[in-house]
Amino acid sequence: MQILKGAPVAAAIRDEIKKELEGCETKPCLAIVRVGEKQEDLSYERSALKRMSGVGIETKLFVFPADISMDDFSAEFAAINDDPTIDGILLFRPLPAQLNESQIVESIAPEKDVDGISSAALGKLFSGDKHAFAPCTAQAVMEIIHFYGIEPQGKRAVVLGRSLVVGKPLSMLLLNENATVTICHSRTASLPEVCREADILVTAIGKAKWVDERFVSEKTIVIDVGINVDENGMLCGDVNFGQIEDKVFMATPVPGGVGAVTTAVLAKHVLEAAKGRRALNSKGGKNGLSAD
Amino acid sequence: MQILKGAPVAAAIRDEIKKELEGCETKPCLAIVRVGEKQEDLSYERSALKRMSGVGIETKLFVFPADISMDDFSAEFAAINDDPTIDGILLFRPLPAQLNESQIVESIAPEKDVDGISSAALGKLFSGDKHAFAPCTAQAVMEIIHFYGIEPQGKRAVVLGRSLVVGKPLSMLLLNENATVTICHSRTASLPEVCREADILVTAIGKAKWVDERFVSEKTIVIDVGINVDENGMLCGDVNFGQIEDKVFMATPVPGGVGAVTTAVLAKHVLEAAKGRRALNSKGGKNGLSAD
Repeated sequence: MQILKGAPVAAAIRDEIKKELEGCETKPCLAIVRVGEKQEDLSYERSALKRMSGVGIETKLFVFPADISMDDFSAEFAAINDDPTIDGILLFRPLPAQLNESQIVESIAPEKDVDGISSAALGKLFSGDKHAFAPCTAQAVMEIIHFYGIEPQGKRAVVLGRSLVVGKPLSMLLLNENATVTICHSRTASLPEVCREADILVTAIGKAKWVDERFVSEKTIVIDVGINVDENGMLCGDVNFGQIEDKVFMATPVPGGVGAVTTAVLAKHVLEAAKGRRALNSKGGKNGLSAD
Repeated sequence: MQILKGAPVAAAIRDEIKKELEGCETKPCLAIVRVGEKQEDLSYERSALKRMSGVGIETKLFVFPADISMDDFSAEFAAINDDPTIDGILLFRPLPAQLNESQIVESIAPEKDVDGISSAALGKLFSGDKHAFAPCTAQAVMEIIHFYGIEPQGKRAVVLGRSLVVGKPLSMLLLNENATVTICHSRTASLPEVCREADILVTAIGKAKWVDERFVSEKTIVIDVGINVDENGMLCGDVNFGQIEDKVFMATPVPGGVGAVTTAVLAKHVLEAAKGRRALNSKGGKNGLSAD
């Protein structure tokens, strides 16, 4: 079995970005918007800040108290949206209950929506628009598939989970590359049998070690998007890796698989957003980034 | 085998609408926008005009010459969009080459997009928003499924075709009702085998009588969305009906199946659009329609 590690995939993406940004006077800029001090947000934030700086992307961190009112947060978010020096926005969710999350999400400027959270971005993705920003985690799965030379066309892909962050957008990305896509979920009958049909099985259900040997065959390429904590407090995926590792064709580990690629994709999207925006804002400059 | 005719489905939808509009002073109004004189547009238009009038929905017909310029058409379309007496817009496509179809489609007022053509409408559908207007043909398939008491939950649905008019939106509608959905297309390997797994098989590929007995089993419910012309000049579906009719559980005929339900769905969407809009425009009135 081949282990599909995320690190070399992320490194290759970051190298591309660094090369493209070499010699640029103006750097792309990502706004990170956090409400409150949730542990998981802080952890992802640290990783994102480090990764952006490593490739030459600037960041602006906006932190608001957990009890901020909707009026105040709307005004702050609108200002970030309108700030011409910001190319992309990463908004940590879920937001606290007093904030109307769907209203905030729909207000994000489409050209800055680098994590593909608005229904406008999802609509473009659904329409097969190649310029749509897919949610970073869904795109990270595709980056792994491409890096390891896996050809989706003609393959059967089974996506376990139908969230808007992974399952549904990833199904569209796989469909755009001509896979035959099956979307499974908690109400699917005979789930192990359906999953076993897959050439590419993507698990995104958030249940620790839930997917076992009954779900796979010797041809299966397993991409595990789950990030869970097991009974011993250790990070683990949706897949019982120990049980499937000798029985499948390829598999991503957790940690060190999809999760390792997400911030690289985020950086790539910020660069693309900057190129799109600066090209609109200025006619000069070699690549539209040097002449803001 | 049970034949799933469209006529009783459409009649039930129309009866609901008539009942709801009884005694309303103001009627919902559909704008039909046609560029040129294409035979298929004219045929659908005649049917739509008759059906709307039959349920008490008003229509305004806007016909433009096939060589209208983009500037002129944009201005005309904007006026239709802004006309407060119009609740829904049906735009015949494809538009002639000199018109930027995607720009026109994206300009349609979301609340009037009763055929779900804009990426905003598709994004809402993709997000699982129950208030999204699905494309009428995709919704017509769901109406047939509901009318005949077919329960999608836990069933395997295979959708053959991935267009934005039928295949993709219908996949989302089936997923919303907890079917396990597989999306197939021209690049799918072993297409007959994949289709034979279906409890519900929806064909939307536009190839006359292309789906034969190899694609079905005795449990298959076949919903044929295709409208094609066969070698004898007769209307037919994507399915070779004669070959499968003794071998499946249920099937829709062509003509007289899905196609017979589409304009009833259109009328239903116009009514919903009117209720949404008038409720916004006026605080008074029993159901928001009587007080415009």
